[in-house]
Amino acid sequence: MPSPRRAVVLLSGGMDSATSAAIARADGFEVNALSIRYGQRHAAELEAAREIARRVGAARHVELPIDLRAIGGSALTADIPVPLDREPASIGRGIPATYVPARNTIFLAAALGWAETLGAFDIYIGANAVDYSGYPDCRPEYLEAFQRLAGLATKAGIEGEGRFAIHAPLLRMTKREIVERGTALGVDFSVTRTCYDLDAAGSACGRCDACLLRLRGFREAGLEDPAPYRART
Amino acid sequence: MPSPRRAVVLLSGGMDSATSAAIARADGFEVNALSIRYGQRHAAELEAAREIARRVGAARHVELPIDLRAIGGSALTADIPVPLDREPASIGRGIPATYVPARNTIFLAAALGWAETLGAFDIYIGANAVDYSGYPDCRPEYLEAFQRLAGLATKAGIEGEGRFAIHAPLLRMTKREIVERGTALGVDFSVTRTCYDLDAAGSACGRCDACLLRLRGFREAGLEDPAPYRART
Repeated sequence: MPSPRRAVVLLSGGMDSATSAAIARADGFEVNALSIRYGQRHAAELEAAREIARRVGAARHVELPIDLRAIGGSALTADIPVPLDREPASIGRGIPATYVPARNTIFLAAALGWAETLGAFDIYIGANAVDYSGYPDCRPEYLEAFQRLAGLATKAGIEGEGRFAIHAPLLRMTKREIVERGTALGVDFSVTRTCYDLDAAGSACGRCDACLLRLRGFREAGLEDPAPYRART
Repeated sequence: MPSPRRAVVLLSGGMDSATSAAIARADGFEVNALSIRYGQRHAAELEAAREIARRVGAARHVELPIDLRAIGGSALTADIPVPLDREPASIGRGIPATYVPARNTIFLAAALGWAETLGAFDIYIGANAVDYSGYPDCRPEYLEAFQRLAGLATKAGIEGEGRFAIHAPLLRMTKREIVERGTALGVDFSVTRTCYDLDAAGSACGRCDACLLRLRGFREAGLEDPAPYRART
């Protein structure tokens, strides 16, 4: 049996990247998981990423520290408050405070470097353009531009036998569809962490944009979110 | 007097990025220097970067650690020997062992994130396509593709009042021309470090590709390289 082709899968520990990893495996790839430690407020996300990598049968899992606090500019990396209790309908409008400048470009660049080292040409990212239309680096035209860049940026792109492909299988899915696809592929969402404001025990707030969209996705799928939430105060 | 526009300048500590920083200042920009600590073999490069930032009057200098050893794949980040004593004429052929997978993409992505935080739209990189034609991410078509990506990747690119520009002022210069331009702009090359194999005291080997091209550049400019070299063994 030939060994499966390798893919690099960006894995944050959230429900989207967990589903993206399960899709990469279902697509027949050997999963090489890459988590970026970018100065997140809590380590629970990375613990979730480790567990997800283990369960999806990843061949390798690299945690690359890139401390984006040094360049600031986001509620996720600097002292800017995370917005709470917004109406789900309003979340998609404008670019939120949780936007991290050039985040996906930095993450995809690191994934590209590792892919080249591994001899991989396929990169999976859990970007989603439906609920998070506010993030410029989750749009199809952005991902196409990065794919084009990848071919020009690398030795493998010029001399190699493959062509780089950026896979964003969730790009046009609603959160409900992500819940359904992940469930069908056996993703255990109880270990995933999506919240922007996890507490030290890894419990979600239930009030930030990420929680509100996630909870709505489970509700619309007719399922209960198995992840831990802390009591509302 | 209006305050000058800001630019982010990638600063490695070598002669090219020192000259690029001097050009950014001469172009009228406030210099914001960004050095990436990517697991270099020696700290002397970063000490050089600090001194160059000070001398060019940088408003800020951020050192961002991105440990590329975690993804390997290069003589500069893994246990692959640096080639020595090659003929200068042969250095430009093929892609050398010192190529770091996706290095400039990772560096430019970080610069883009910081630029957005600072409200800057101009990024300077000391990329050079003449002597290092072997590096795919030093070619004009690569840099143009990144500039296009920058506009799509960011909140500033979509909503902002400027357009991102990737400046690579040395792109088509020979090393001789870089020595001459830098000298004219007051760059003190004695503090710059270019060598791929610096010793603990910060002395250059004189034998790697980077040293051979640098020494030839000074020779052709009719100048002596003021940086320290260790005795040939």
